[in-house]
Amino acid sequence: MTSDIETRHTEKMKRIKAARDRMMAERTEERGLVIVHTGTGKGKSSSGFGMILRCVAHEMPCAVVQFIKGGRMSGERKLLESHFSDLCTFVVSGEGFTWETQDRARDIAAAEAGWEKAKALILDPKIRFVLLDEINIALRNDYLDIDTVVDFLLHEKPEMTHVCLTGRNAKPELLEIADLATEMTLLKHPFRDGVKAQQGVEF
Amino acid sequence: MTSDIETRHTEKMKRIKAARDRMMAERTEERGLVIVHTGTGKGKSSSGFGMILRCVAHEMPCAVVQFIKGGRMSGERKLLESHFSDLCTFVVSGEGFTWETQDRARDIAAAEAGWEKAKALILDPKIRFVLLDEINIALRNDYLDIDTVVDFLLHEKPEMTHVCLTGRNAKPELLEIADLATEMTLLKHPFRDGVKAQQGVEF
Repeated sequence: MTSDIETRHTEKMKRIKAARDRMMAERTEERGLVIVHTGTGKGKSSSGFGMILRCVAHEMPCAVVQFIKGGRMSGERKLLESHFSDLCTFVVSGEGFTWETQDRARDIAAAEAGWEKAKALILDPKIRFVLLDEINIALRNDYLDIDTVVDFLLHEKPEMTHVCLTGRNAKPELLEIADLATEMTLLKHPFRDGVKAQQGVEF
Repeated sequence: MTSDIETRHTEKMKRIKAARDRMMAERTEERGLVIVHTGTGKGKSSSGFGMILRCVAHEMPCAVVQFIKGGRMSGERKLLESHFSDLCTFVVSGEGFTWETQDRARDIAAAEAGWEKAKALILDPKIRFVLLDEINIALRNDYLDIDTVVDFLLHEKPEMTHVCLTGRNAKPELLEIADLATEMTLLKHPFRDGVKAQQGVEF
């Protein structure tokens, strides 16, 4: 006793499945992606760490370089260093947000040191995924040269290695070479109502 | 020997820090948030799982209910069940994407079963954070009644418990009551170039 609505639903879903199966059959390529998370909304870093969680789950060696955050011990760092240091290398390069340091020369030195480590990790043939967390802030402030970074990603990144770059204000040059780019847009934020940053949500 | 550019940078960052410190001082409230991740871009589920990673790191008991995905063993589920089953309860309610099942009655039953489990987890006083992954798809397809869900979040959710609801096409009623809402917008996607879903990135 199948109702009309159920029959229509089944037919519609069959068409969607057929179209999807055709599309998936055409997607045969595997390659290392340049992934960018930008925008003023939340979720840029946490979805980067969500991908690190997937890599660890699949026992894919991976690495994180934090470019700007780093003044405080994040939950992600604590968990990855205490449980998965064999699979995930964690490097902290920044000394906190730039407005905490108020020292441009020191910020530049920290960003450059982070980039040197990032390059070595990306070039490491064992490592399959590298998260460059908040690197867009270092690029936007010209602590790092965008052309140098783009050139490395285009010409020196191993073909099968994924690199995910996060942070607001991604430079157009980076978006131009990205395979996968997402803008996180703020629709609503509780800070506006006087709610402070909370464990588990923000850090 | 401080150059002009460095002096200006220091002054600017001092002003930013002062404004930020004032803003943070006004944010004293802690409360459980209703968090929504929507939009057609990537990162909705992975940033939800990034928050779960933070909770686990801080030893905050948490839970995941997957509403639509579930036909396949995800990396997140594998990792959380094998390493952190004491801290994170993982429930799979859906039987795959809706176009895989082609059976509306079965999808509704699965969504309703998931919602019953979700309510019990949210009401559990030990649990601090509940991720309702892809529930927006169940709501959009009217497998679950939006008014029932909104009413529960407004009136029955314990005050300090965070609930994160993900999936594209979030209903306006849900966005209306959200404390924190982010739209993930697709800028670029490699599927368009024939690249298939890859381990670590998509699952």
